[in-house]
Amino acid sequence: MNMSTVNTARLLITCEDRPGIVQAVSSFLYHQGANITALDQYATEAQGGRYFMRVEFELDHLETRQDALIDTFQKNVAEKYAMQWHLSCVRDIKKVGILVSKVDHALLELLWRHARGSLPCEITQVISNHEDLRESVENFGIPFTVVPVNKDNKVEAYARIDELMQGNDLLVLARYMQILNEDFVNKWPMKIINIHHSFLPAFVGANPYKQAYEKGVKLIGATAHYVTADLDQGPIIEQDVERVSHDCTVEQLREMGEDVERNVLARAVKWHLEDRIIVDGNKTVVFQ
Amino acid sequence: MNMSTVNTARLLITCEDRPGIVQAVSSFLYHQGANITALDQYATEAQGGRYFMRVEFELDHLETRQDALIDTFQKNVAEKYAMQWHLSCVRDIKKVGILVSKVDHALLELLWRHARGSLPCEITQVISNHEDLRESVENFGIPFTVVPVNKDNKVEAYARIDELMQGNDLLVLARYMQILNEDFVNKWPMKIINIHHSFLPAFVGANPYKQAYEKGVKLIGATAHYVTADLDQGPIIEQDVERVSHDCTVEQLREMGEDVERNVLARAVKWHLEDRIIVDGNKTVVFQ
Amino acid sequence: MNMSTVNTARLLITCEDRPGIVQAVSSFLYHQGANITALDQYATEAQGGRYFMRVEFELDHLETRQDALIDTFQKNVAEKYAMQWHLSCVRDIKKVGILVSKVDHALLELLWRHARGSLPCEITQVISNHEDLRESVENFGIPFTVVPVNKDNKVEAYARIDELMQGNDLLVLARYMQILNEDFVNKWPMKIINIHHSFLPAFVGANPYKQAYEKGVKLIGATAHYVTADLDQGPIIEQDVERVSHDCTVEQLREMGEDVERNVLARAVKWHLEDRIIVDGNKTVVFQ
Amino acid sequence: MNMSTVNTARLLITCEDRPGIVQAVSSFLYHQGANITALDQYATEAQGGRYFMRVEFELDHLETRQDALIDTFQKNVAEKYAMQWHLSCVRDIKKVGILVSKVDHALLELLWRHARGSLPCEITQVISNHEDLRESVENFGIPFTVVPVNKDNKVEAYARIDELMQGNDLLVLARYMQILNEDFVNKWPMKIINIHHSFLPAFVGANPYKQAYEKGVKLIGATAHYVTADLDQGPIIEQDVERVSHDCTVEQLREMGEDVERNVLARAVKWHLEDRIIVDGNKTVVFQ
Repeated sequence: MNMSTVNTARLLITCEDRPGIVQAVSSFLYHQGANITALDQYATEAQGGRYFMRVEFELDHLETRQDALIDTFQKNVAEKYAMQWHLSCVRDIKKVGILVSKVDHALLELLWRHARGSLPCEITQVISNHEDLRESVENFGIPFTVVPVNKDNKVEAYARIDELMQGNDLLVLARYMQILNEDFVNKWPMKIINIHHSFLPAFVGANPYKQAYEKGVKLIGATAHYVTADLDQGPIIEQDVERVSHDCTVEQLREMGEDVERNVLARAVKWHLEDRIIVDGNKTVVFQ
Repeated sequence: MNMSTVNTARLLITCEDRPGIVQAVSSFLYHQGANITALDQYATEAQGGRYFMRVEFELDHLETRQDALIDTFQKNVAEKYAMQWHLSCVRDIKKVGILVSKVDHALLELLWRHARGSLPCEITQVISNHEDLRESVENFGIPFTVVPVNKDNKVEAYARIDELMQGNDLLVLARYMQILNEDFVNKWPMKIINIHHSFLPAFVGANPYKQAYEKGVKLIGATAHYVTADLDQGPIIEQDVERVSHDCTVEQLREMGEDVERNVLARAVKWHLEDRIIVDGNKTVVFQ
Repeated sequence: MNMSTVNTARLLITCEDRPGIVQAVSSFLYHQGANITALDQYATEAQGGRYFMRVEFELDHLETRQDALIDTFQKNVAEKYAMQWHLSCVRDIKKVGILVSKVDHALLELLWRHARGSLPCEITQVISNHEDLRESVENFGIPFTVVPVNKDNKVEAYARIDELMQGNDLLVLARYMQILNEDFVNKWPMKIINIHHSFLPAFVGANPYKQAYEKGVKLIGATAHYVTADLDQGPIIEQDVERVSHDCTVEQLREMGEDVERNVLARAVKWHLEDRIIVDGNKTVVFQ
Repeated sequence: MNMSTVNTARLLITCEDRPGIVQAVSSFLYHQGANITALDQYATEAQGGRYFMRVEFELDHLETRQDALIDTFQKNVAEKYAMQWHLSCVRDIKKVGILVSKVDHALLELLWRHARGSLPCEITQVISNHEDLRESVENFGIPFTVVPVNKDNKVEAYARIDELMQGNDLLVLARYMQILNEDFVNKWPMKIINIHHSFLPAFVGANPYKQAYEKGVKLIGATAHYVTADLDQGPIIEQDVERVSHDCTVEQLREMGEDVERNVLARAVKWHLEDRIIVDGNKTVVFQ
């Protein structure tokens, strides 16, 4: 990590839209001596709209000045505009836990990109409800734990997973084929990313490739979204599709779809780690 | 039209899958003196599967030999394999009627491509439930007729449209914002192509761009399909999508979507005119 | 044009990168009473890098305040940072002249989008070196002039075209198959957009589809770029490609390519009209 | 491998285009008792054109009948049409050797897809001019050998690699950053696939991402091609691109490009293994 990265932070801001916000935030940072390296904003069009902002900046000696910066911003800027806001320092590497079942493509894509340095996080552990992927995960030097889940032990199982995952900033469901219980989901609000193997909202539920085959669609897709208590209904982060034709079997759709899934999931996780996503009700604002 | 085109025909064949079909068809054509210029086949994988074939061939003096060819093929080949089949001669330009309401993008794309020679058909007329597009259509030298439709005159209106459209091989709904009545649909089986302004089966029904906006999808799409009595459920011919972001308004989604719609519809119509599509239950086989 | 549009303006700024620019610009606008509706920035990474900014804002009574605003901004902000900058008011509709030869697809795409209200400009006239497209153009109610060009009259011809085009803000070469002379190009710096029918820098020069066919590429493309004295070498604004296969003839490559060309050109022209492009040496910054 | 796969073979045929070829081939196979499961053909349009065909078929007891089949086909069909042809049995798994330098993404994509069963081949060994990737390769249980190459030992080095690679059906250059010597290339005609990190023919030679950055292109790409003695000029098998923008650094172009490279290479290798490619002069026919 070089000096520039050590001193880089990002502000994510949500508030009611009104004039002067860019000016207020940029003046504050300027007078603190910070250099703005990226700035994105978005306002919904509706009357009394919402305003969203992402600012990336560099500030010398950020580590020692961080606490004071947060206090001052809250008092001098955030209160005036009733902002919900969050500051994250690039130096504070985010911790990520992964949940997986038996299929490995989405998991391996994450482990591999992480190993190559293109996912800025620490992958702390992988938890599965099956033994199958132990060797694949441990080859990367990452702890692997099995927590069996069945219809009789759901409460205990998710309590155990929650306990094991404590300390993580983000959980990723890399094709975890169990439905999380609501209690668990509520403990990790907008902190769980799932990859769904269809172009939602088409083909919710089980066996989307089979549904796609039977419907005869000409494109198959994948959707990365935050997990909420409503199955397959959380805010969509990223989607992509691949062209298919009448002669693809369900199995071929699945194989082609897995390539889409792993790329879509990797992009969504990366954007979360780079603080590019703000949740706006049931939708996401993604600053790229 | 040059000699080669005048003597070109296409066979579309559907039957139960069993050995020898390619051999039987190609031998027949060889012994007739035809030269096969394109051949595509597809068989469903299931036990007792279905077989689909498209053959394009050139045969000298096709016009005078056509009737005999059809008889002989039926007796010598088609009966043996219990084929459903159809021969079309490229020389017999297909006739196309278009139905439209007020928005013009899908209609104009068809008229324009037709004018440039890239849609091999005759566009016989355009029927609308509104006056708005008369000038646009008549500028292309194509007759324009208004047949008003409302909830009280549906039966008469569609009887009138059916009468006006007699003689056409294909009807295209280029954003025709009325639901056809079942009787009309049944008279034109797999002869009506509609463009739906969403990536079906997501967002069936009205206002798909508004639905897409509210759901926060990251891709919007369009679907061209044959019209059946089940609204938005007919066999899909072609689909495509365009990437969108959180800052697109419903209006911008609509504008971007219209570009997808017109390209998807133009491709579907072209494939139909080139005899590239065979309907297989609720799906299509498209030989490209 | 509604009140909001009438009072909307855009600032395009280029200067040396240093801290405080966002703050300076946003403070200036805030104190003028303007509301920033979009803000994009980009800085090159190199030491002593360049900084680029686009700000869109609304300001009541913009028309009467515009001149004072320009003076004050120059004195209070631009001089301090040695900015090159330009203010454009959305109310001042840009004037566009089009040059074309015989093929019509790129031209018609522009005329059509303009007619539908999705190109915010006035198309003042179309000049061609051939008569062929007169009717197509005049059907849209736009003046059409023929200025023949041959190797003996180049100087006079371009002097004539330059004279006819006076008053336009932008010239678009919608498949104009003549090489402009250097003198003409120098009179319209970064004010001429050309569509090249290949994915530059592959296939510079003549007959790119033939070159692509002979090379056996699997994608064909198109490139919209500003015209400079170096043929096919001006700053690239937009590019796109379409997948092709071994069985495409040169003619089919051309037909598929024309669809790419018209979309690429339309996007490039729209971005120019919306003041989204800043030229940075031989490259463009495009704020989308 | 199930019975169907064990008894599946593919015929690749090239000859002069004339009537009767489909009939001759399909009749031959029919009378042998084979069932055609896929058939593709392509004829160049030029006078005295070339004809290309791929037929996949199932034949009971293929293993014991294979030699007789080859003899009979040569005598009864191939000689008559002066065919160049090749029969491959799916049962005979192809052997693949990989050459690599230091960057791992293209290599790992192949190893990983192979491990998941989606590349139908045996990967026999990986040879590199550096030690760096030993562990990554050996983790997959595949032998790894270092053969250093420098300007003084080229002849011996490639003689050594040629010796080590004997018995392979295909060599893959998965970002092997050495220029093969001509003698080596001539020993492996159309049996070496390279991934080039640009959309050829744009950006031949070294540092294509730097070239792309300096040129300001809006799409970056990758090209998989057969290796010939002409550097970067061999027949193109597959290409793809990704959209980029002005704010991508060379490093980011490289990272995005690597995702394109690995997918393009994996597709090209898969098509070769499935006998989908016929080389036609400096171009490829790819039957998908």
